[in-house]
Amino acid sequence: MTLSSIPLNERPALVRPACKALCVDGFIIPRGDEYLGEYVAPCAERLAWLTGFTGSAGLAAILPNVAAVFSDGRYTVQLEEQVPHDLWERRHISLEPLSDWLAEHANGLRIGYDPRLVSQSMLASWQTPGVELVALAYNPIDQAWADRPEDPASQIMSQPLEFSGESSSDKRLRLGQALIRAGHDAAIIADCTSLAWLLNIRGSDVPLTPVAHGYAILHADGTAEWFVSSERLSADVMEVCGSGVTVHAPAELAMRLETLKGKTVRVDPVSTAVWFHTTLQAGGATVVDGTDPCTLPKAIKNSVEQEGARQAHAHDGVAMARFLYSLTVSGIGQHETDLVTRLDGLRARSNDYREQSFDAISAVGPNGAFPHYRAQVGHDRVLEAGSVYLIDSGGQYPFGTTDITRTLWVGDQEPPANVREAFTRVLKGNIALSRIRFPPGTTGHRLDVLARAALWQVGMDYDHGTGHGIGSYLSVHEGPQNISPAPRPVALEAGMIVSNEPGYYEPGQYGIRIENLMLVRPSSFKGSKGAFLEFEILSYTPIDRKLIDVALLNDAELNWLNAYHAEVQARVSLHVEPEVAEWLAEACKPLVR
Amino acid sequence: MTLSSIPLNERPALVRPACKALCVDGFIIPRGDEYLGEYVAPCAERLAWLTGFTGSAGLAAILPNVAAVFSDGRYTVQLEEQVPHDLWERRHISLEPLSDWLAEHANGLRIGYDPRLVSQSMLASWQTPGVELVALAYNPIDQAWADRPEDPASQIMSQPLEFSGESSSDKRLRLGQALIRAGHDAAIIADCTSLAWLLNIRGSDVPLTPVAHGYAILHADGTAEWFVSSERLSADVMEVCGSGVTVHAPAELAMRLETLKGKTVRVDPVSTAVWFHTTLQAGGATVVDGTDPCTLPKAIKNSVEQEGARQAHAHDGVAMARFLYSLTVSGIGQHETDLVTRLDGLRARSNDYREQSFDAISAVGPNGAFPHYRAQVGHDRVLEAGSVYLIDSGGQYPFGTTDITRTLWVGDQEPPANVREAFTRVLKGNIALSRIRFPPGTTGHRLDVLARAALWQVGMDYDHGTGHGIGSYLSVHEGPQNISPAPRPVALEAGMIVSNEPGYYEPGQYGIRIENLMLVRPSSFKGSKGAFLEFEILSYTPIDRKLIDVALLNDAELNWLNAYHAEVQARVSLHVEPEVAEWLAEACKPLVR
Repeated sequence: MTLSSIPLNERPALVRPACKALCVDGFIIPRGDEYLGEYVAPCAERLAWLTGFTGSAGLAAILPNVAAVFSDGRYTVQLEEQVPHDLWERRHISLEPLSDWLAEHANGLRIGYDPRLVSQSMLASWQTPGVELVALAYNPIDQAWADRPEDPASQIMSQPLEFSGESSSDKRLRLGQALIRAGHDAAIIADCTSLAWLLNIRGSDVPLTPVAHGYAILHADGTAEWFVSSERLSADVMEVCGSGVTVHAPAELAMRLETLKGKTVRVDPVSTAVWFHTTLQAGGATVVDGTDPCTLPKAIKNSVEQEGARQAHAHDGVAMARFLYSLTVSGIGQHETDLVTRLDGLRARSNDYREQSFDAISAVGPNGAFPHYRAQVGHDRVLEAGSVYLIDSGGQYPFGTTDITRTLWVGDQEPPANVREAFTRVLKGNIALSRIRFPPGTTGHRLDVLARAALWQVGMDYDHGTGHGIGSYLSVHEGPQNISPAPRPVALEAGMIVSNEPGYYEPGQYGIRIENLMLVRPSSFKGSKGAFLEFEILSYTPIDRKLIDVALLNDAELNWLNAYHAEVQARVSLHVEPEVAEWLAEACKPLVR
Repeated sequence: MTLSSIPLNERPALVRPACKALCVDGFIIPRGDEYLGEYVAPCAERLAWLTGFTGSAGLAAILPNVAAVFSDGRYTVQLEEQVPHDLWERRHISLEPLSDWLAEHANGLRIGYDPRLVSQSMLASWQTPGVELVALAYNPIDQAWADRPEDPASQIMSQPLEFSGESSSDKRLRLGQALIRAGHDAAIIADCTSLAWLLNIRGSDVPLTPVAHGYAILHADGTAEWFVSSERLSADVMEVCGSGVTVHAPAELAMRLETLKGKTVRVDPVSTAVWFHTTLQAGGATVVDGTDPCTLPKAIKNSVEQEGARQAHAHDGVAMARFLYSLTVSGIGQHETDLVTRLDGLRARSNDYREQSFDAISAVGPNGAFPHYRAQVGHDRVLEAGSVYLIDSGGQYPFGTTDITRTLWVGDQEPPANVREAFTRVLKGNIALSRIRFPPGTTGHRLDVLARAALWQVGMDYDHGTGHGIGSYLSVHEGPQNISPAPRPVALEAGMIVSNEPGYYEPGQYGIRIENLMLVRPSSFKGSKGAFLEFEILSYTPIDRKLIDVALLNDAELNWLNAYHAEVQARVSLHVEPEVAEWLAEACKPLVR
């Protein structure tokens, strides 16, 4: 990534005087941008510009004579490679946190941060006794980074009713009623995926998530003030937004927040920059911490969005079948990054495909043992016979977002028994979670063990959650629901989509993960508290039969698998070439003992 | 229960002037005593004396012109029957809580409570805007209840090393070290089961739990001050307590708390009366909320206690086998309460049996649908052919405490298919939890769904937790671990005992519950974070084969069941009469498809 003509080694020396001019001794640089989302635009790659580190999670702190970059375990190697060692210490963000480093190096000092880039919860985690954290009026990096790219200003598109299923006016009135019930006059919408959902708009300001940067104030009467450059708007967008939306230039935001004087305003402490809190409070509003009012409604897909998700997965299933077939013909010898390109190309054969929903994980052999592995051209492995291959990828379609992982055995040899056992136990977990019914009110963490029990039985486990929510042509990771060991007080509700992705990772050897997306729906069983819920599988792609040890499956599991494969064939084979259909028929053949 | 010669109707009129003399407008009466345990002595039955209500959970509030008694769903009928309706409103303690009632009736009033009977967490739940809660210097009930029985003063017994497995001095030194690490100078031991565990003593001050009332101050140097009447002690007790324990008269407690001036004292907000907080603070100590230091060590049974638990269950298994056999010979026509007496008598054939560990639940047909049903003489049902019978009982032995539930089909008819299905699904849950292995650090709530999944699959569930801890010749309900839907941040550790008791309740028809106790132990499987854990079953009693639908069991479940029954027979049959052994052989025969 070429972000600047200024040599990497010279950048810290440009930032330090900018700090001094702001009367602080140092500065903390998070990876995120003003919208605190998963992906950022080039102009917001401040961490990468300053330090050279391009990982998707991390932060840096710079003091007059020392400086450090922090990231997590998946980026240890990348951090070492990208960051000039003479200028930056490299630290593990959770094992050697920022607050420890500040305690050691910044005692008695004033350390600045940009309140537009930092949430209240981030700020709380940085607090260190003896260190004064100071909100700055402007960002010293932006001062120093003379050739910083322009802010993204992609043309904003409408998300029509045929895909959104609910008009923006209806959404805003519905949420306004909820604000009234909570006693709030307004809410700040700072999460771009919430903004996109609420206004039925999409954009391309960042890669992989189709959002447009901007903020809104949602009022309890269902009207909204949208802060966005009017040049980015079309008549179509304004028509889809509907009545009750006023557009303001981004520069008017602070002034408009002052008009909330005397009002009670809900602000989400996780998704909103602290600048909103301080500006609202200074303007005389009462700030109440509360969840973004879009979070739960956005997670509960309406029937149109549900149908869109099914359609997106129909397209995706065709691309995945072609891809898996292609590996049997011309897989061996290909680089991991080549295979990402190939799969992207196969998805692109659908006119509705827009882009990947995240950077695909394409991992041969030992690379698969890193659950968040990202292949890089020139550093990637080649697909070899006799190895395990893990491919975790997804697509953005205007009617839905997909995310699927398959793990394959490459070549004609028999896979080792231990790999087959691990794979089959991961599959048993996936099936157990797929098949469960559960009473209304059940939180996701209560189901997590179902996906692990078969692994636990022989001392195996995986060190990540089992499932996350997903957007509707929005972010591939969406809250508030999940399925994870850590308790989160959010019940799974009909209309929510969650992933089901147990895995097993043998360091230095291989990684296994089997991931389908599932839609929560009412079952035909009624309990004393109402209809029980169950999952409708959305992803239809063969599960590698070569890696399954049938002896480890019980009847219910075997029946589930054979029914799933029959459904894969029924849904996909008419839409693929004869040779793919032939391969598919073989890949979906019932397994027998 | 005859608690007093004062007529029930006249008692409120005696308490109201006593309140007035204390300058309060009313008084809140909890069910518990000074030790906040599960069972109370007759002298502490203040709620029953005042209102007539003898249930094991509840409270009352009395104001100049109105008064109410609060209890939960299992006591709705009993509350209506026992309490004079002209004097007392009857309310549901969680659906119509005290704070609502106070808001309605006590706005602007001063309401007293006895700070010796109320924990900090209880007091917090009573707080109501507009109502002043006032700690009283003495208890107005005790003033009014002229013929209140004496405080219990049972002779205190030692719990010898052959049963406790660790000397009191060793326990105190170990806990003292933990206090030092936490930066605490001392801890208040107010839970009588903690006191009994720490000092290796037992008593009979309350029914069913072998504790002696008293308090202790544990100092960080491992010494303890024990507040108990010296008349209750013997040389043997003092020897088993070991060096470092000073005995003080109970009346000296306040004075001794004052000697902690300037010290940091840990007080458990749940198990300790608020009187301790206020007395310590008034005396100049720093009070720190923290878990009773005995709670976790007491829950992790040492090898001697583990062996004692096995032995207690060996005795219990013999009694249960005799009891179940006896039902086949002379069960029909017996009252529920008669059967409790019969089972108690059969347990008493062991010289080591001391008493029940709780009031047994003996429930025929529809009575079983109340999970906490308690049969009362004159109101109880008779065992009939063609009905479901549920018996949940336990015993106290000097080396361990037991708790077991079995559900039986009575008579020679074929049980209805729906009862067999429900029973088999409960059994599947019990087996799934019995068989699971899990990594170190796993909290109990993560396992809960394993016991429910088979029921959930067809829209069934049960509205109680799946498992609780249990004491070693102590309380039948012991923390901190449990297995329940509600998250609790306590990991299951080797040495802990938990119950495994899924159920199903069909209102108006029957109740099903299958309960075994299980000991957590290391498994032979090692994971990346250490040895995985598994359960060793402690309870060995046949599970009614007539109620099992074999078609619903998979191979693993059927194998587990047959192995369990083989083990029951191997462990029990040599210790019972030939006719019982013959019945047992039949009851333990392998099931086949």
